[in-house]
Amino acid sequence: MPQSADTPPSTSAGPAAGGLLSGLFGTPEVDAELADPALLRAMLDMERALAEAEAESGVLPVSAAEAIAAQCRVERFDLAALGAAADAAGNPVVPLVRQLTAAVPAEARPWVHHGATSQDVLDTALVLVAVRATGPMLRHLDAAIAAAATHAERHRNSVMLARTLGQAAAPTTFGLKAAGWLVGLLDARSRLVAARSALPAQLGGAVGTLAALGPLGPEVADGLAARLGLAPSRLPWHTRRQPLLDLGSALGGLLAATGKLGLDLGLLAQSEVAEVAEGGGPDRGGSSAMPNKRNPVDAILVSAAARRGPGLLATLYAAAVQEHERATGGWHAEWEPLLDLLRLAGGVASRTARVLTNLDVRPQRMRANLDALGGRVLAEAVATRLAPVLGRAEAHDVVARAVSAPDFRAGLLADPAVRAQLREPDLDRALDPANWLGSAGVFVDRALLAYQESDAYRGSVADREVATDPSTPTAPEDGS
Amino acid sequence: MPQSADTPPSTSAGPAAGGLLSGLFGTPEVDAELADPALLRAMLDMERALAEAEAESGVLPVSAAEAIAAQCRVERFDLAALGAAADAAGNPVVPLVRQLTAAVPAEARPWVHHGATSQDVLDTALVLVAVRATGPMLRHLDAAIAAAATHAERHRNSVMLARTLGQAAAPTTFGLKAAGWLVGLLDARSRLVAARSALPAQLGGAVGTLAALGPLGPEVADGLAARLGLAPSRLPWHTRRQPLLDLGSALGGLLAATGKLGLDLGLLAQSEVAEVAEGGGPDRGGSSAMPNKRNPVDAILVSAAARRGPGLLATLYAAAVQEHERATGGWHAEWEPLLDLLRLAGGVASRTARVLTNLDVRPQRMRANLDALGGRVLAEAVATRLAPVLGRAEAHDVVARAVSAPDFRAGLLADPAVRAQLREPDLDRALDPANWLGSAGVFVDRALLAYQESDAYRGSVADREVATDPSTPTAPEDGS
Amino acid sequence: MPQSADTPPSTSAGPAAGGLLSGLFGTPEVDAELADPALLRAMLDMERALAEAEAESGVLPVSAAEAIAAQCRVERFDLAALGAAADAAGNPVVPLVRQLTAAVPAEARPWVHHGATSQDVLDTALVLVAVRATGPMLRHLDAAIAAAATHAERHRNSVMLARTLGQAAAPTTFGLKAAGWLVGLLDARSRLVAARSALPAQLGGAVGTLAALGPLGPEVADGLAARLGLAPSRLPWHTRRQPLLDLGSALGGLLAATGKLGLDLGLLAQSEVAEVAEGGGPDRGGSSAMPNKRNPVDAILVSAAARRGPGLLATLYAAAVQEHERATGGWHAEWEPLLDLLRLAGGVASRTARVLTNLDVRPQRMRANLDALGGRVLAEAVATRLAPVLGRAEAHDVVARAVSAPDFRAGLLADPAVRAQLREPDLDRALDPANWLGSAGVFVDRALLAYQESDAYRGSVADREVATDPSTPTAPEDGS
Amino acid sequence: MPQSADTPPSTSAGPAAGGLLSGLFGTPEVDAELADPALLRAMLDMERALAEAEAESGVLPVSAAEAIAAQCRVERFDLAALGAAADAAGNPVVPLVRQLTAAVPAEARPWVHHGATSQDVLDTALVLVAVRATGPMLRHLDAAIAAAATHAERHRNSVMLARTLGQAAAPTTFGLKAAGWLVGLLDARSRLVAARSALPAQLGGAVGTLAALGPLGPEVADGLAARLGLAPSRLPWHTRRQPLLDLGSALGGLLAATGKLGLDLGLLAQSEVAEVAEGGGPDRGGSSAMPNKRNPVDAILVSAAARRGPGLLATLYAAAVQEHERATGGWHAEWEPLLDLLRLAGGVASRTARVLTNLDVRPQRMRANLDALGGRVLAEAVATRLAPVLGRAEAHDVVARAVSAPDFRAGLLADPAVRAQLREPDLDRALDPANWLGSAGVFVDRALLAYQESDAYRGSVADREVATDPSTPTAPEDGS
Repeated sequence: MPQSADTPPSTSAGPAAGGLLSGLFGTPEVDAELADPALLRAMLDMERALAEAEAESGVLPVSAAEAIAAQCRVERFDLAALGAAADAAGNPVVPLVRQLTAAVPAEARPWVHHGATSQDVLDTALVLVAVRATGPMLRHLDAAIAAAATHAERHRNSVMLARTLGQAAAPTTFGLKAAGWLVGLLDARSRLVAARSALPAQLGGAVGTLAALGPLGPEVADGLAARLGLAPSRLPWHTRRQPLLDLGSALGGLLAATGKLGLDLGLLAQSEVAEVAEGGGPDRGGSSAMPNKRNPVDAILVSAAARRGPGLLATLYAAAVQEHERATGGWHAEWEPLLDLLRLAGGVASRTARVLTNLDVRPQRMRANLDALGGRVLAEAVATRLAPVLGRAEAHDVVARAVSAPDFRAGLLADPAVRAQLREPDLDRALDPANWLGSAGVFVDRALLAYQESDAYRGSVADREVATDPSTPTAPEDGS
Repeated sequence: MPQSADTPPSTSAGPAAGGLLSGLFGTPEVDAELADPALLRAMLDMERALAEAEAESGVLPVSAAEAIAAQCRVERFDLAALGAAADAAGNPVVPLVRQLTAAVPAEARPWVHHGATSQDVLDTALVLVAVRATGPMLRHLDAAIAAAATHAERHRNSVMLARTLGQAAAPTTFGLKAAGWLVGLLDARSRLVAARSALPAQLGGAVGTLAALGPLGPEVADGLAARLGLAPSRLPWHTRRQPLLDLGSALGGLLAATGKLGLDLGLLAQSEVAEVAEGGGPDRGGSSAMPNKRNPVDAILVSAAARRGPGLLATLYAAAVQEHERATGGWHAEWEPLLDLLRLAGGVASRTARVLTNLDVRPQRMRANLDALGGRVLAEAVATRLAPVLGRAEAHDVVARAVSAPDFRAGLLADPAVRAQLREPDLDRALDPANWLGSAGVFVDRALLAYQESDAYRGSVADREVATDPSTPTAPEDGS
Repeated sequence: MPQSADTPPSTSAGPAAGGLLSGLFGTPEVDAELADPALLRAMLDMERALAEAEAESGVLPVSAAEAIAAQCRVERFDLAALGAAADAAGNPVVPLVRQLTAAVPAEARPWVHHGATSQDVLDTALVLVAVRATGPMLRHLDAAIAAAATHAERHRNSVMLARTLGQAAAPTTFGLKAAGWLVGLLDARSRLVAARSALPAQLGGAVGTLAALGPLGPEVADGLAARLGLAPSRLPWHTRRQPLLDLGSALGGLLAATGKLGLDLGLLAQSEVAEVAEGGGPDRGGSSAMPNKRNPVDAILVSAAARRGPGLLATLYAAAVQEHERATGGWHAEWEPLLDLLRLAGGVASRTARVLTNLDVRPQRMRANLDALGGRVLAEAVATRLAPVLGRAEAHDVVARAVSAPDFRAGLLADPAVRAQLREPDLDRALDPANWLGSAGVFVDRALLAYQESDAYRGSVADREVATDPSTPTAPEDGS
Repeated sequence: MPQSADTPPSTSAGPAAGGLLSGLFGTPEVDAELADPALLRAMLDMERALAEAEAESGVLPVSAAEAIAAQCRVERFDLAALGAAADAAGNPVVPLVRQLTAAVPAEARPWVHHGATSQDVLDTALVLVAVRATGPMLRHLDAAIAAAATHAERHRNSVMLARTLGQAAAPTTFGLKAAGWLVGLLDARSRLVAARSALPAQLGGAVGTLAALGPLGPEVADGLAARLGLAPSRLPWHTRRQPLLDLGSALGGLLAATGKLGLDLGLLAQSEVAEVAEGGGPDRGGSSAMPNKRNPVDAILVSAAARRGPGLLATLYAAAVQEHERATGGWHAEWEPLLDLLRLAGGVASRTARVLTNLDVRPQRMRANLDALGGRVLAEAVATRLAPVLGRAEAHDVVARAVSAPDFRAGLLADPAVRAQLREPDLDRALDPANWLGSAGVFVDRALLAYQESDAYRGSVADREVATDPSTPTAPEDGS
């Protein structure tokens, strides 16, 4: 269960929960919502909500729904046994229903799983898991967003080198760079929230007609969705997987946005650049072999996750081409890639929050790196000043000649065409990077405004209510 | 240029424009918007709109803008020469700007491409191309949607076999199957329209600060977007590619939705099933070697395109992780995959419209296939009738025994437990598939209602206006 | 550890070891070699073999190597603690080395992990894991190959319908279909064995120069590889990942080959076709909702795995583009996808073996489906007999007219052009599918010959010896 | 047609042949082999060779084969008309066969395309195209390999900074870096050559039985392969696509190997690093906006291509899961991705050759960058000297303290533990990077030896003979 909204977001990815490798790609609070117990809980939440919705619609006796609900508790089931029995059925729902049926009193047994098919349970459970896992993911993301906004604001005027196609290009500010990250994260957030809140419950019965529910099918389906805090669905989506594609695309977008950030940080942290360094305790990023090294561990792990997103997303899209009323493999192919995408997205949200919060930003070094180029990156600034008179082509050529000189400024001053247009103080103004920032500040302000108008700023994770027990809506035992 | 909104959508994919193979994956009206002349036109539209927006903001003289605009005509440029010269620069904008500059009068030359970088031109041009290509794509898609709606309505009560995991499962209707396709296409449409209308113009200058425009950068950028009928962008998105990911995801979703449809059609057209056949002239789908064959050509080509979507989409997501202010390869990696996705999406929209419009639906065969199973697919119906008294498990077992009998109905009647619960007329009602359709009709109605409330139904392609010459908005020479 | 070569291969995938979902995509014997304890064991095998190879080369004292080897035991380490500590270092090797160092006597401590870098340990460990996991994988694959060969031989003359582009086309034999599967599996096997035996040990030290080993680097590296039964490497491959790409491609090829087989089986098992059914106990593939259903569970799970292969393989290829001497994320991105590919490949090998071994093949149904088409699939046979006289085009047209007749044979006999060429017995010979099988039998024989000449036939898994303790080669404690 | 083997490989990618964008990802000599005329030629080569092989086996009259061969000339066919007609058939072979049949004398008409199916022609033609396109590709690759070897040899002792995880790590040599590229290219080459020479001709007839050829099927199929210089195939591979997967994997491996090289070059060319620069004429990589810039254009385009490889390869693997005797979409899905992979591979081979041949390597700058770190990257060297006495952990700590000092060397000398072990000259030896290169030189030598033993060195492109007219083997009209 996500923590309440006022829990301060942790900026620590914390200890890895998932073993030797998997923890490096996840984060504990999200991972916990993706693990088998959480999936089992979601399956049981579905079975309970189904029975309760059916009772409310008069499909089955209230007593049966109560008897079923009473058994829908994770601790009554043996995960390993369910997993083992899943093999023969091709999914874990068949044995779960068998065990659940055996656990309820005889008079309730006909009503367990009534009218549903295995895919109804597993689809709804995966959707619940996705909703629940994105709760802590969004909190981490909001912390990352807040940290990016802080950098954008604080460094609105911190001049640094802009680099294009790997080359020093012209001045920019670290604030604008952070503003770009900020907008990237905000974009990713808005898509994730939209996809999340559109995730529908699944109830179609054996073939999507809800035949076993007679005329009450749509009412039960809508009641089920309401109980679980999920979106209703116009019709069953057994082989119409756009909701999962929307979620996957949003997660993929988050991996790309944080991947860009991680890539930038890795490049800025290069020894030759050294404009940022990852913070964190003394042990982070140390190398056993090389005492001189401090590796940008979080940037690297975020970059690694970003490389994995496209393949997983492609699998979801490939799997979405599904046969007839229920698929011959495409459905099964979605399960683990979807969970992996959620895990990776949780990991990058957490690590991005941590790395941005603790980031060691070095404006002096930024300035020094810029100055080391002797004004050459202001070539465009000089050329622009010269162009109205010399013409663009001639101005470009004049400046290009000076760029090759050992001292760019001296080279310019030695050129009669330049001297004819620019006095020395004018040239120095042209060579001051602070005068060649264009709209960098405006763009930073726009990004900050977008932030302030966003849900992320309002500090509220727009958590959907995922109540499974409508009688206690204010303190859901297991809602998100 | 998209045809006007009242042009009746063609249901023919028409002759392939693109050579031996490529025409099989595109459709002429869309392909034309993706070809090199269209891309060059879009690049020139951008250069012209830039000059005009700059003139309007007072950055450059109106006369210069007019002189530039006068040269921004595709026929004045040599595509092959531009392509050849692109190699040294790494993109075709550099030689284009060089040629355009040479073509304008001397006094206008300093103002060509003023303040822009190559990526501004190519990004904006690709966005324009995407907007223009999606015009005819949406018209084809709307024709496909209309045809799917017609099938859903016409066959609301056409009983057929539902198949799950490849097996005969229970009755459904062809109307519900078509309704599922319909909703899938509507979902794909809404995502495509949303992504399309959010596509922003790009203007950031060398490093995203618009330094060369001084304080007028944002005004010019917004003016540029307005002139081109594109969305404005808060800040340049040189290395923040979410708009392209949104478009790519929407195109990928369309490929998946039509791929599901093509897969269903291919399976329904199997010789052993034969519930549908592709229409079209006598030559369609014929085999030179086997006179007996009629191949479902459009379904196959739609399926083929669907297999290619995920890889292309993955490439866009992988390419979106871009360095610093402008990327070292990621940007270049987007171009062709984006154009390929647009081409494939145009092809599947066109082919889906054609195949659905001409589809030979065979309700009698559907009924015959259903009846051939001797009522076994109504096992759940019978079990459900028995379950309240016998219990689910016992009812399931009783029915399972009868399923194995040579004659299911006779097997049921021979079972004392059945006879105790069901009289023969009751059993026959249980075995009538029309009585075991649950909410199929309601779901069809919901899908049709969704259609009637959609833009697709209103017959209006919500074409964005992409006017490049605001003085002639009613008859744009080259607008979309 | 792989079982000895004479262990009869199990055809059962057995109970799922991996929880609610993961067991559906793996198989226990392979999964066990991929789990964290196996990975930890492989890391410790590497550390031990490194110390021993260094001792042998005189880099460190034999006593130090013995002290280190004595601690390289899985049970002395806490997996959860290692996983938790991995986060700060970015990989689990750093804390493992720390703990191992602490565990050995003081005099041996300087020699733990001597000259190696984390990547040396993890790369070598993953390679060891891959070698070990492919042991049982190959045994399952050999069982699948043997079963396919049996079908090919047994059904060499079992006539059935060939289907192309989803349509009934002409006769073939089930033996030839099985022969196609057989050759596909043999091809996959040969690539897997080749990639496996080329997997190299990794030893490059901090930057690939083995600087800390002075002039003894290559000797130690080769000694390490020999001790672990791995291939030597010309130079360290820290950022040259072709060996992993070869392995990934081979696994991807296996997923494709079995995916084709699973797809065929799913199609053949369709209710309308029913030419095969999955065997297995009474519980396999049952449906809780529909007593009439028997789902082809293994074919479906194999198909599902096949949909996941391409995305994982693409990730390996994308990750292989790695920076400088050691990568900034690409390396990390490989770990889980490689393990996932191995798991999926194990699962499909096991399930393919099971499904082929137990397959219920129904030659009568095959023949009945063929006959139900009234000879139309022999249209080419008839046309071929007519072509030499009538010309191909005319023969094609004549036959095409008859195909449309209610009774194909009668339609042909009613055509004067046919009657002029073919007497009734000639026509009946032309319409006998057994006379239109061409080289089907020869191709079956070629496939069986290829099998008999293969390692798969010789019943010997060409297991590489992965001995880590050369002093006890006959009973390796932890060998493969 | 590939140039003859003794043509000196061009190191210029030359003018782009393919339009505004496509030329940036290809290279003219390879692109020409992939274009529609080349594909049409290959299709006609197949039809001709088929007729000739059938004549040789006595299936058809020699005069018919001669009549057919006489018409198998590209210039007699209208590409646009074929492309347009392909739509109705789903592939271009059907109209080609129709036109070819119409073109031959009446008596030869029955024998056109005799016994073949469309897929036989297109598969064989694509294989021929692949063989022909890889000819010039391999020549470019060999030029790249030779240039890498030259760098490895020339810079065997050019000390530079090794960088791991983005951080300065320890010394290496540029020779070793080039040796790594060299081995990567050699590995890619060997896989490409192996996959190429195993590419089989396809001949299976309608359903893979070669029914129309009676008992002569295998003989004709083998004769066809021999005439085309292609590998024979045990049985038709209509839905068994491993040969294409092998080719695709090899091309993907080449894209990864060159992508690694392009990534390294881009990083080394960064303004802050500047250890290499791309050569080429004055126009290469210039920026219109920024006269100071010189972009590493080829490295960028190679990197861009590398991002596209995985998605295309994944599509080939996804498409390889094909139904029954011939596929319902999977086959069609292969065509364009395969051609794209070939085009991209040609482009990267050409650009890698160019960039390596013209590369401006700056050993002084390498040394300066190394020296600028004040010996800190020799921390491991110092720690290793101290470890035997102090213990690894203590040595590591001692050195780590000094690393933080303003002057590393002074910091070390100030530490009593250091002074107790190392005299100043010893320390200086430890701090000399040339003394901490380990086996760098040996590894360079190993790589060069591998090169000298390779086909690439023998200067001979192991071009397969692709003769289509065995009577004129010395001057094939269109052979590769």
